[in-house]
Amino acid sequence: MSEVAAAGTVADVGDGPKPVRIGLLGRGNVGAAFAELLDARAEAVLAATGRKPELVGVLTRSEGDFAEILEGSDLIVELMGGTDPAREYVAAAMRAGRPVVTANKQLLAQHGDELFGIARESGVQLRFEAAVAAVIPVVRTIQEGFATADIERVYGIVNGTTNFILSEMAASGAGYDDVLARAQELGYAEADPTDDVSGADAAAKMAILARLAFHTPVTLSEVSYEGIESITPDDLAFAKELGLSLKLLGVAERRGEAISVRVFPCFLYSAHPLAPIEGAFNAVMIQGPAFNEVTLSGPGAGGLQTASAVLGDVVSILAGEAPVHETRTDLPILADVPSSFYLHLEVADRPGVLATIATVLGDNQVSVKSVVQRGIGDDARLVMVLHECLESRFARAVEALNELGELRGPARSIHVIEERS
Amino acid sequence: MSEVAAAGTVADVGDGPKPVRIGLLGRGNVGAAFAELLDARAEAVLAATGRKPELVGVLTRSEGDFAEILEGSDLIVELMGGTDPAREYVAAAMRAGRPVVTANKQLLAQHGDELFGIARESGVQLRFEAAVAAVIPVVRTIQEGFATADIERVYGIVNGTTNFILSEMAASGAGYDDVLARAQELGYAEADPTDDVSGADAAAKMAILARLAFHTPVTLSEVSYEGIESITPDDLAFAKELGLSLKLLGVAERRGEAISVRVFPCFLYSAHPLAPIEGAFNAVMIQGPAFNEVTLSGPGAGGLQTASAVLGDVVSILAGEAPVHETRTDLPILADVPSSFYLHLEVADRPGVLATIATVLGDNQVSVKSVVQRGIGDDARLVMVLHECLESRFARAVEALNELGELRGPARSIHVIEERS
Repeated sequence: MSEVAAAGTVADVGDGPKPVRIGLLGRGNVGAAFAELLDARAEAVLAATGRKPELVGVLTRSEGDFAEILEGSDLIVELMGGTDPAREYVAAAMRAGRPVVTANKQLLAQHGDELFGIARESGVQLRFEAAVAAVIPVVRTIQEGFATADIERVYGIVNGTTNFILSEMAASGAGYDDVLARAQELGYAEADPTDDVSGADAAAKMAILARLAFHTPVTLSEVSYEGIESITPDDLAFAKELGLSLKLLGVAERRGEAISVRVFPCFLYSAHPLAPIEGAFNAVMIQGPAFNEVTLSGPGAGGLQTASAVLGDVVSILAGEAPVHETRTDLPILADVPSSFYLHLEVADRPGVLATIATVLGDNQVSVKSVVQRGIGDDARLVMVLHECLESRFARAVEALNELGELRGPARSIHVIEERS
Repeated sequence: MSEVAAAGTVADVGDGPKPVRIGLLGRGNVGAAFAELLDARAEAVLAATGRKPELVGVLTRSEGDFAEILEGSDLIVELMGGTDPAREYVAAAMRAGRPVVTANKQLLAQHGDELFGIARESGVQLRFEAAVAAVIPVVRTIQEGFATADIERVYGIVNGTTNFILSEMAASGAGYDDVLARAQELGYAEADPTDDVSGADAAAKMAILARLAFHTPVTLSEVSYEGIESITPDDLAFAKELGLSLKLLGVAERRGEAISVRVFPCFLYSAHPLAPIEGAFNAVMIQGPAFNEVTLSGPGAGGLQTASAVLGDVVSILAGEAPVHETRTDLPILADVPSSFYLHLEVADRPGVLATIATVLGDNQVSVKSVVQRGIGDDARLVMVLHECLESRFARAVEALNELGELRGPARSIHVIEERS
């Protein structure tokens, strides 16, 4: 076991905390984001683990020597992608006692048995949260929190490219080729999109999830898959009419003493937890008798998002056993913060009322975003959504409104979160 | 440190694996479910951790002696609820070197600083996934996967009773009192619902999440909250009109070098990830610059669901460092499984076509659940949703349909998941 794996959570004293030397294989999109994030969060890693991370070597196609990087590292992060030479490097690193973090789904979907075997023999951790759905904690949840849960089924929208294309086709009515071209322009699809649109990428991820959920060997070649290339706008129009959503769905399920692991386009009824997952987002739903269903969703790709998952794995390795909670700071708790509000007023329906109310709001520097007025008999209801302002200021405005003779009853207000922040 | 915490993942050989002796405090709804689940999953726990769990003592109001149970246990599970005497027992257990798993939100929201301090001093784990949103892995995600992430905000629907009431009010147009009475009948609300409907329960959970997200001490008394008692059907009608959903929302956010932690009723725009969370479900959304937003949802209460979270914590303690994946079985992978399908046929619009098609389906034992027929010129489109049948049988039916002279083009089919299973 390497020094890293045995380090635990306690910082050395005396000469200061011992750094953890990280060797990085690959500096593409994710690799570069990881190097930057590691630097930006170094103090947080030190606070959480007692070890300060140091990037001691980076292997790229043109630079660096693997043997040298391995020799000088306590922990290896593999972000090169592909199975060769990643397979050889990851195996060698673990055999040399280095824990490994990887985001490489193909590596684990094709050579999982070999690599997990080497990890066990070598007594080191092999972590891979980023290999499935980037920063969405599906691996951690299935492998750790649900380690002994009786999982029956895992449903996954685990490919952002295809979910983006299907969402766009449903929203615009456009055909597959047009939307694919648009996805390529926006960077949501590769120049050669085959791996995504054929379902092959999703199949690799489902192989990994099925292995973890059912504790059984599953390799990519055993996962059957079907892509979205032949979906037509017609299919999506009928889906809308039937109240169904069309998704490229990964399904891993237990059926008696066997399992089924597949990927196919699929209509979901509208109340299905995966039905609202739109655009490039990913989501995984886990079902079992003891916990019903748990759904995890979020961005399933992106350099920074994937790098975040990798960093989470690095921290888990450094922290050893689950960290005992410790505060690192003592932040004051604010009583007054800015918020948006919905404001509901019942007023006498006579000229000038709206102007009076608008003046009171304006005097308190509360501004109106939208307003709906509706008469009921002699009264009118004004329903407004206000722009964000300090709650104390809004409270003063409401007090001033309540003191006007114009209101039939006290003003009613409710917080609003209106737009994606 | 107790033997348990140091046990690691390796099963002893020779006299067989060493059992782990578990002392259970409390045998209410959750306690009873935990005892049953522990028994049912004992072999799975052994496979995952190398230790077989044994329930060695249960403390209830009328039976058992705490000191005796502590003495005979390697690990304490506290499911009594309330702060006294739970606080004293949990503290004593940790001081005696026993790791503790608890589902007690009040204990941690009110006495977190003291108890986490004792855990650190004693070098034992204190785990509490079930204290917030039952089996939804929010504690694990925030504390472990996102330990060094720069979390900006946590939004939570963390009280199922109030979410059920608001969902019902929105769906039925009924008033608060009527829906509360209904929730009480169905067991979604207590006879005295104050703790839930006032927002106090959600406030305790948000205090815990804020502490973990921001690494800063937060206690229940610092969380301001507002309940749902004064929400009217009118508010929900306007919400619908404005395209907004009304939720009781917990918000913990960083604002510069301070934080804000609050609970209040809140309108959410329809695309907000928490907007589709209906009924007694809970959900937590975590936002930060490096990972955008990750949302976790599922059942937020229930004896068995809460017990599942407790068992997950017990397993994590026994497993020590994150377990290296190991297969425990070798399940065959099925090629042919039952599925439901959508079937889209373009046919000549003449008498008898539907009958011919229905006969072919029937001959292959494929039965129709719903069908829509629509004419276009001389052609008609038949869109059907079929009952679940073996895929091989469905494939034979499609082949037979394609061989008919009636179709204008090949039949198109797509998987369907129609109803919540």
